Amino acid sequence: MTRYQHLAGLLAERIQTGLYLEGEKLPSVRSLSQQHGVSISTVQQAYQVLENQQLITPQPRSGYFVAHRKAPPPVPAMSRPVQRPVEVTQWDEVLTLLEARSDKEMVLFGGGAPDITQATLKPLWREMSRLAQHQVLDALNYDTLNGRRELREQIARLMLDGGIALTADEIVIASGCHPAMSLAILAVCQPGDIIAVESPSYYGTMQLLRGLDIKAIEIPTDSETGISLEALELALEQWPIKGVLLVPTCNNPLGFIMSETRKKAVLALAQRHDIVIFEDDIYGELAAEYPRPSTIKSYDIDGRVLLCSSFTKTVAPGLRVGWIAPGRYLDRVIHKKYAAIGTNVPSTQLAVAAFIRDGHYHRHVRRMRQIYQNRLETYTCWVRQYFPCDICVTRPQGGYLLWVELPETVDMVCVSRTLGRLKIQIAPGSLFSASGKYRNCLRLNCALPPNDENREVIKQLGEAIESALEA
Amino acid sequence: MTRYQHLAGLLAERIQTGLYLEGEKLPSVRSLSQQHGVSISTVQQAYQVLENQQLITPQPRSGYFVAHRKAPPPVPAMSRPVQRPVEVTQWDEVLTLLEARSDKEMVLFGGGAPDITQATLKPLWREMSRLAQHQVLDALNYDTLNGRRELREQIARLMLDGGIALTADEIVIASGCHPAMSLAILAVCQPGDIIAVESPSYYGTMQLLRGLDIKAIEIPTDSETGISLEALELALEQWPIKGVLLVPTCNNPLGFIMSETRKKAVLALAQRHDIVIFEDDIYGELAAEYPRPSTIKSYDIDGRVLLCSSFTKTVAPGLRVGWIAPGRYLDRVIHKKYAAIGTNVPSTQLAVAAFIRDGHYHRHVRRMRQIYQNRLETYTCWVRQYFPCDICVTRPQGGYLLWVELPETVDMVCVSRTLGRLKIQIAPGSLFSASGKYRNCLRLNCALPPNDENREVIKQLGEAIESALEA
Ligand SMILES: Cc1ncc(COP(=O)(O)O)c(C=O)c1O
Ligand SMILES: Cc1ncc(COP(=O)(O)O)c(C=O)c1O
Repeated sequence: MTRYQHLAGLLAERIQTGLYLEGEKLPSVRSLSQQHGVSISTVQQAYQVLENQQLITPQPRSGYFVAHRKAPPPVPAMSRPVQRPVEVTQWDEVLTLLEARSDKEMVLFGGGAPDITQATLKPLWREMSRLAQHQVLDALNYDTLNGRRELREQIARLMLDGGIALTADEIVIASGCHPAMSLAILAVCQPGDIIAVESPSYYGTMQLLRGLDIKAIEIPTDSETGISLEALELALEQWPIKGVLLVPTCNNPLGFIMSETRKKAVLALAQRHDIVIFEDDIYGELAAEYPRPSTIKSYDIDGRVLLCSSFTKTVAPGLRVGWIAPGRYLDRVIHKKYAAIGTNVPSTQLAVAAFIRDGHYHRHVRRMRQIYQNRLETYTCWVRQYFPCDICVTRPQGGYLLWVELPETVDMVCVSRTLGRLKIQIAPGSLFSASGKYRNCLRLNCALPPNDENREVIKQLGEAIESALEA
Repeated sequence: MTRYQHLAGLLAERIQTGLYLEGEKLPSVRSLSQQHGVSISTVQQAYQVLENQQLITPQPRSGYFVAHRKAPPPVPAMSRPVQRPVEVTQWDEVLTLLEARSDKEMVLFGGGAPDITQATLKPLWREMSRLAQHQVLDALNYDTLNGRRELREQIARLMLDGGIALTADEIVIASGCHPAMSLAILAVCQPGDIIAVESPSYYGTMQLLRGLDIKAIEIPTDSETGISLEALELALEQWPIKGVLLVPTCNNPLGFIMSETRKKAVLALAQRHDIVIFEDDIYGELAAEYPRPSTIKSYDIDGRVLLCSSFTKTVAPGLRVGWIAPGRYLDRVIHKKYAAIGTNVPSTQLAVAAFIRDGHYHRHVRRMRQIYQNRLETYTCWVRQYFPCDICVTRPQGGYLLWVELPETVDMVCVSRTLGRLKIQIAPGSLFSASGKYRNCLRLNCALPPNDENREVIKQLGEAIESALEA
């Protein structure tokens, strides 16, 4: 953490705990600088952060004051999806969302890309360039089918942080978390099978189910505690479900982290009904808490959890490096990988392996975790400021995604078309449901820098929603 | 082509056309050097090539003589596979073959990797390094779903050489020819469907069919003219076949190039029976003839040919850059790509696009085409010299693969186990059949440099086969 972030955190805490009261004048820049032994500009940066988060307001020529606070908006209630297996639809809508990526002018609040502009990523580029110069045969040759061993060894070490003790041989590299999930499902399911999912659920995985001809049954999910175990159990009793697919740590889109108890309970349920768990841990390392929360996989004793993840969110999407720890399905995953995809690009695997090995990965993730927490707070403030007042907003415990629930009458699918013309891309909530729910919701990518332009975009977004409300 | 290769070609032609007769003394190095205005060492290199090809023999202190020639071995006869749809097996054997790749000591005559050590590839490394330094955001961001446009534009230009006029928008990038094939089949077929294939057929594609639960019907195939149209027609009349999968230009493993007439005839057959053609063109640019032979796709008027290819053989396997021109299945291919795999690595796409754009690709392929032709000749000579005499050997018209048929009593699956212990990997013929044929055959990768060590390996191979014959 940089000095100014540290200072901002300290001041924010004092405000939140009531040490500075609403409307109270804060210490001057100069006195804080002396008090904490930091430069004037550090204090100014810290105050800027707090101002972005609307914790303080500047008053011309008299300094900063603790802002008057509205009560925070409530979080969304437990979801209530359709309780039977359905086919996933919405492919055209997802395609529209994806195609916006190639429009250079579009502001991409609807995607899930991380911030790849931070200086802590530089050692990765250097490694890529070094590889092209000095290890070119490794980079140009076929990879082995399960992926480069150097990398699998580093991943095995990382996974220890999530409580998982595995060897490099129990890990298979895939070109991202998405293809890892695809292999996991191919290894376990047949077309026509049913998988239980959280509701709402990441649209990419939903489309994956559709592509593999798997039916989804959406299970009610709470925005703070995760999937309803009671509803899941009922569904398991009623339908021949093959597995449950979860993003239990820093959920996409809701941002919750399931508690250890609930993680263990869902595993016990899977054991009792003899089904598998597809655990998507892609945001797991970006949890606000440190050390990171444990994975369901870490409690798995009979290899029924297939854990999938990637460096897409923690490092960069263009690497296309992910992995799967498939438990007892290892051989089937390897066979499916050969059949469906073949081997992966070695160069990005080698680059990221060196990035981890040399300690750069941990440094980078530590920094990004902090940055994303700050940004989530800032965007939450802006949403409160510019959106209609009767909304619900998630309180993400990690990652960088925010989920906003608007009044029932707002149709975000329509609003997003209007926004598209303004070159603003957002993800309408309906993409996250197989049964057409959540049209009044949206997901925002808070990895975008909270600068003036983006503040303006959130404001425009709020206006578009207001007009939809009035119409 | 270098000078010595040119000279070697000229002399070979004179020998083959009988201008120099068997046993006749050849001009001295010095006189040839004067005659052709080339250096002494150029002539020496040319003679070395001819000696490797066993066209000439050196006699100490008296120079080079035209070798006494055995009649060339016959080519394999039309194959006679089982005439009904079967499930592909042999996964364990293919896995053994693949796993040998990670053994650094193994000599890989069984794989299909090209030679990636030539200097004409250097501009590619430079481009990769440049990208890591100067275009890093492009390299680290998500790709678009159909792949980088720069690359698709270059591919559209290349495809013109195969007679295909397409725009960049009609091409979808995949991470190799194998995943391109996988998407093509997913877009057209359902599990349980039947696809007709050449026999023998590349084992990777066979395993792909197995992985997708597609049945294969093997069609008799001639080692010089390709798939039997008569047998294919019979099969189409008898079975509900969804498509026919062909490697019509520089076939793997047989090396034939189907004539234009036969290419048109197979397309007409597909039209008559309303099925699709999966055209695998991965070796197409390595045809000995120049300009390269046309593709079946170039005659396609109603979008029923799905052409798949990659830069794996022409540039390098580690790029994982391939493509598909899916005709009328474009939308389905894009959807299946999103569902099963997602996007690809941008950096290797950008590198190869620049490699083509700047003319390096054409220079490289021109050189490799010549090198592989020479190597095929050299290995053919060595096989004639060291293998038992009653064998059939293909006469590849491009690519770098040689297929050898041994007496029926030889079991190459057993021999390959013995060879594995000697750290020699070959591909036993049985991998190329869904119904267990071709156990007495093997495929050799002649992209390996024909140096003394590899000559020794071919000798050991011959010995292992001899012992198998005697046993
Ligand atoms: C929950 C979740 N799973 C999977 C993915 C896909 O990851 P990758 O790009 O590594 O394939 C994403 C990316 O948005 C995601 O949010
Ligand atoms: C005929 C054929 N098709 C497809 C492939 C697979 O190509 P790629 O490595 O580009 O996926 C190969 C490679 O050996 C091949 O020979």
